[in-house]
Amino acid sequence: MISINHAKALRIGGVGLAASAVLLAGSGVAMAEEAVPFDTQVKFIFNTLNFLVMGFLVMWMAAGFAMLEAGMVRSKNVSMQLTKNIALYSLAGIMFWLVGYNLMYSGVDGGFFGTPGPVSIPDPAEEAKGLAKEGATMYAAASDWFFQMVFCATTASIVSGTVAERVKLIPFLIFTILLTGVIYPIVGSWEWGGGWLDAKFGFSDFAGSTLVHSTGGWAALAGALVIGARKGKYGPDGSVHPLPGSNMALVTLGTFILWLGWFGFNGGSQLAMDSAENVSAIARIFVNTNLAAAAGAVTALVLALIIYRKVDITLVMNGALAGLVSITAEPLAPSVPLSLFIGAVGGVIVIVFVPLLDKLRIDDVVGAIPVHLIAGIWGTMIVPASNGDATFFGQFVGVVAVGVFTFVVSLIVWLALKAIIGVRVSEEEELMGLDAAEIGVEAYPEFGKGSQAI
Amino acid sequence: MISINHAKALRIGGVGLAASAVLLAGSGVAMAEEAVPFDTQVKFIFNTLNFLVMGFLVMWMAAGFAMLEAGMVRSKNVSMQLTKNIALYSLAGIMFWLVGYNLMYSGVDGGFFGTPGPVSIPDPAEEAKGLAKEGATMYAAASDWFFQMVFCATTASIVSGTVAERVKLIPFLIFTILLTGVIYPIVGSWEWGGGWLDAKFGFSDFAGSTLVHSTGGWAALAGALVIGARKGKYGPDGSVHPLPGSNMALVTLGTFILWLGWFGFNGGSQLAMDSAENVSAIARIFVNTNLAAAAGAVTALVLALIIYRKVDITLVMNGALAGLVSITAEPLAPSVPLSLFIGAVGGVIVIVFVPLLDKLRIDDVVGAIPVHLIAGIWGTMIVPASNGDATFFGQFVGVVAVGVFTFVVSLIVWLALKAIIGVRVSEEEELMGLDAAEIGVEAYPEFGKGSQAI
Amino acid sequence: MISINHAKALRIGGVGLAASAVLLAGSGVAMAEEAVPFDTQVKFIFNTLNFLVMGFLVMWMAAGFAMLEAGMVRSKNVSMQLTKNIALYSLAGIMFWLVGYNLMYSGVDGGFFGTPGPVSIPDPAEEAKGLAKEGATMYAAASDWFFQMVFCATTASIVSGTVAERVKLIPFLIFTILLTGVIYPIVGSWEWGGGWLDAKFGFSDFAGSTLVHSTGGWAALAGALVIGARKGKYGPDGSVHPLPGSNMALVTLGTFILWLGWFGFNGGSQLAMDSAENVSAIARIFVNTNLAAAAGAVTALVLALIIYRKVDITLVMNGALAGLVSITAEPLAPSVPLSLFIGAVGGVIVIVFVPLLDKLRIDDVVGAIPVHLIAGIWGTMIVPASNGDATFFGQFVGVVAVGVFTFVVSLIVWLALKAIIGVRVSEEEELMGLDAAEIGVEAYPEFGKGSQAI
Repeated sequence: MISINHAKALRIGGVGLAASAVLLAGSGVAMAEEAVPFDTQVKFIFNTLNFLVMGFLVMWMAAGFAMLEAGMVRSKNVSMQLTKNIALYSLAGIMFWLVGYNLMYSGVDGGFFGTPGPVSIPDPAEEAKGLAKEGATMYAAASDWFFQMVFCATTASIVSGTVAERVKLIPFLIFTILLTGVIYPIVGSWEWGGGWLDAKFGFSDFAGSTLVHSTGGWAALAGALVIGARKGKYGPDGSVHPLPGSNMALVTLGTFILWLGWFGFNGGSQLAMDSAENVSAIARIFVNTNLAAAAGAVTALVLALIIYRKVDITLVMNGALAGLVSITAEPLAPSVPLSLFIGAVGGVIVIVFVPLLDKLRIDDVVGAIPVHLIAGIWGTMIVPASNGDATFFGQFVGVVAVGVFTFVVSLIVWLALKAIIGVRVSEEEELMGLDAAEIGVEAYPEFGKGSQAI
Repeated sequence: MISINHAKALRIGGVGLAASAVLLAGSGVAMAEEAVPFDTQVKFIFNTLNFLVMGFLVMWMAAGFAMLEAGMVRSKNVSMQLTKNIALYSLAGIMFWLVGYNLMYSGVDGGFFGTPGPVSIPDPAEEAKGLAKEGATMYAAASDWFFQMVFCATTASIVSGTVAERVKLIPFLIFTILLTGVIYPIVGSWEWGGGWLDAKFGFSDFAGSTLVHSTGGWAALAGALVIGARKGKYGPDGSVHPLPGSNMALVTLGTFILWLGWFGFNGGSQLAMDSAENVSAIARIFVNTNLAAAAGAVTALVLALIIYRKVDITLVMNGALAGLVSITAEPLAPSVPLSLFIGAVGGVIVIVFVPLLDKLRIDDVVGAIPVHLIAGIWGTMIVPASNGDATFFGQFVGVVAVGVFTFVVSLIVWLALKAIIGVRVSEEEELMGLDAAEIGVEAYPEFGKGSQAI
Repeated sequence: MISINHAKALRIGGVGLAASAVLLAGSGVAMAEEAVPFDTQVKFIFNTLNFLVMGFLVMWMAAGFAMLEAGMVRSKNVSMQLTKNIALYSLAGIMFWLVGYNLMYSGVDGGFFGTPGPVSIPDPAEEAKGLAKEGATMYAAASDWFFQMVFCATTASIVSGTVAERVKLIPFLIFTILLTGVIYPIVGSWEWGGGWLDAKFGFSDFAGSTLVHSTGGWAALAGALVIGARKGKYGPDGSVHPLPGSNMALVTLGTFILWLGWFGFNGGSQLAMDSAENVSAIARIFVNTNLAAAAGAVTALVLALIIYRKVDITLVMNGALAGLVSITAEPLAPSVPLSLFIGAVGGVIVIVFVPLLDKLRIDDVVGAIPVHLIAGIWGTMIVPASNGDATFFGQFVGVVAVGVFTFVVSLIVWLALKAIIGVRVSEEEELMGLDAAEIGVEAYPEFGKGSQAI
């Protein structure tokens, strides 16, 4: 016999819900909310569910970045990298609630930013009642905040990998606070907040190749330039010394997590699931997203095989990720063959730009600049090939504007941090590892040379 | 051309479904189930979907505990810890089906427990037809069982970490059988089953700060006291020797998995998603849950930095988890600032109680007692601050009743196990590690000192 | 204040959507799509959502296989195993789009295969409009493709583990291309594509115990026979030398991922969620699937304890997986006790067949043949015990037909690959590890003996 968990249901009446009644009776119960037509409620539920399910997939990407980056650094810096990742996800949430969301979305009106300030989450009963009014928002405000917040956190995750193995914890966290509270929201307001890029240039960036990935990439590039390369990475004679990542299983796990999360990233950016057309669009986005990633991975694998005779696993993983970033600006409009092509070029970008950055002596520990910045630009510029509402000029303006603003502001912030508190650990600390220097806990105390444990 | 997978659709007619017809035609097909109004079916679908999606997130927490605990133990005990975790999740499912669910929910009626016995899962066609009746349950019984089962498994997961590195496998599994089949269901029946705590004291515990987390914590504390500390942890002179966990990447992965799963844990506990109000409530719970965790992590990080000058990663991870446990008793009613405060206190609890337990020479390998027991009490006691239906007295009665019952019964069980079959491995086995002693398979045969492999 | 993300909404109008209107107004907006009754759209949304959510869970299984296999091989072969897994998932997507889906589903009509060719994904606006027509498909074509594709990828994942630690990368990838583009689609067409097995024998395989798991298992067996055992595994005197896996934490993580993903694998195979009956069936499938896995794990654990006095963790994990494979042919019709029995026999199969394969000197690195092939046959043959539409004869015909075809074709392909380009690395390369030989990147350069890193 299955009985009803009615006490638990009754408890949830706390903030004015009559959920227990809903649970106990299938029909005929007169409730306050019945004033709102059920079909309207169904649309509201579907749209909110889209934000929640796709949002938790994007939240999961924070774990993906953490694993990917922890696997790409040497074992003496793994605890630090993990700590940075949980901290940045936490700070992104707090800052995007306190400042960022409203700076990005509140009253931008064709301008350059909105009105910052904390977000107030509506009472569910009030929000439901409000649906009876003309022009009501057709999703729960809290679900929208959650979905937008995880995009903000993603931007910060991108920076974390590039500057790994030498950045100090506190300046990194301060940069994260500014990036998630101010820089990303301002850039985002230009387009998704209805600002000037959207209003005057018809810039198009469906899920954030530029607004999220390039923004993160520019901030990372500024950081890499200010902080400098890791000791031993580049010889005085121009030689490049690989500093191999400590754990390829974590790199792969991170890549799979990101791939999974990207269905939420791109699919959820349809922003609605309340009609056959919208859910069909989400399904199409899933297919294009998956195949662009597949094409990026296979292209990088084949090129690595041809060029190097061996298949560097990190190139394949980054190929998949570059495919994902490339399709993110427009995952809906392209046909499958075009999606495969867009993703494949992402794979080419990885093969070309990873060694190129090393030639420029820009030390990007995880390859975030090729994957997020360069592939993000590529994905944005190719949008007009399938989306007639976008123009190459509009896309170009968006790419340049976001790049200049993010890079310059990030550079100023990194330089200010360098001047005031320093951004880089001492040479001695870098040698012994950031885990010993800043965390006090080794990631793998019993494995290999790191072992000082009993 | 896309053709219909109609053979697969036809196959599913096996138990009386006419799903193929549904798949082949959009409208106008007369079917048995049409007797139930479509709007009623839509509500039933949404509520069931809530249990299934949120339930699989909570199921995923079992992996989170496994990874967290595997990372917190030394490498010689990792296989054992992993085996315990998959076994406890399996046993929880079987016991909660065989005994627990009905002991918790069947005919409790204001009393102290229900009528134990196996759960019968209804035939889908019958259950759907039943919706035409007045007062029908508005969700699939199987989905409710699944959702409640994963909560039961969570309770057992909590115990597993505390007693790690010295408990024997068989007594641990016997304890798990009793915890998931009897102890947790009895405690749960008092409130969620509509028992005395709910009926007479208006105790309020939305998603289980007390019923799940403190219950697990009390059972763990009893185990830690009976089994004693690990060899070498506490010196005869009162000194405390850290026995560092073997893998911080797994600890972080586990924390992220738990954080993700908690959206299901708290959000799904709304128990319904069939109205705009209910889904708005779930969205609000997502936001509060996320920000309480963020506040817990940041608070622990800042305090660790101030007190120790270094940021012990395990404190940050446990800070996030304590924030999650703290908000679990009432994730819906609080405003965002209150949620941040509730979570932040969770972070303080970790910083205060982890060293305090060591002072008391209570050896809690993963910090489950601060995180689940103490933060669970805190979360439960703060409910009246936002939920007017709860009283401090009622909450206090609940906390004490659950604590006394769970602790005393657990103590008796652990002592009985100790007397009859022993609960602790021999000193020799503890030294060589439980993997060699009980599993016969090293977790990392090639890494570090553990290496005896080819 | 929460404002609407209307610019982002406006952008999504790119391919003819009026999503912004949907977002801005709750009702009363006249839209093209309104011609399709809302109830029809709701059914379409639910069915599509089923494919997307359950599909992303199955996609996640690709990560599960990657982790499981990476943990079961020695550390010198981990990067190779990870590379194979991301590559096979990528290739499966491309091949199933280019050839496989239509070969499996397009115009099979009781025959032996369909008409191969690329899948075209419909325009969402067109697809939504099409719902007004009689007999329209009640789910998004793209979501169906996505869901079927991840099953195809699963089949390839199974092969990957068996032939680990000695197969060369390129022949493995060629085999994957043929398996996902041709072999699996042909076998699948016989039943799910409406081919001869379905039309003439009433063969029943709900979610693929035979069509996915045995197919993968037969292909793996053929590979193992052609490639031969790893050096050092079997002594000339008939002795068996265990070559322990390098990372049990990854094995456990992989198992938990697969368990989670299996809710999508079996639950999603209901293929519809648009009625109370269908969602009730999905819920019932969740329960049976979970408990069959639990029974498999517990059975393997208890038998290992009785036979060996120690609980080899890999047997417990494989027990859970064998339970999952066993219930996959019919997860809906059985009662809970029958599901427990079906899963428990899966656990017995692991305990019996893992040593048996070693006796036959068939070197199956991860145990995929017992878990996927033997348990897949068991699960298929027991279907008639609960599903009256299936017969033992029909099931037997299906098992034999799939086995003979897959094994013979796979054998030919492996032998051809062996003759033309070779399938196995040199003895020297096997000794030094495939990571050094083919990938050029060690998985764990700093751990244990593998350490050559700075």
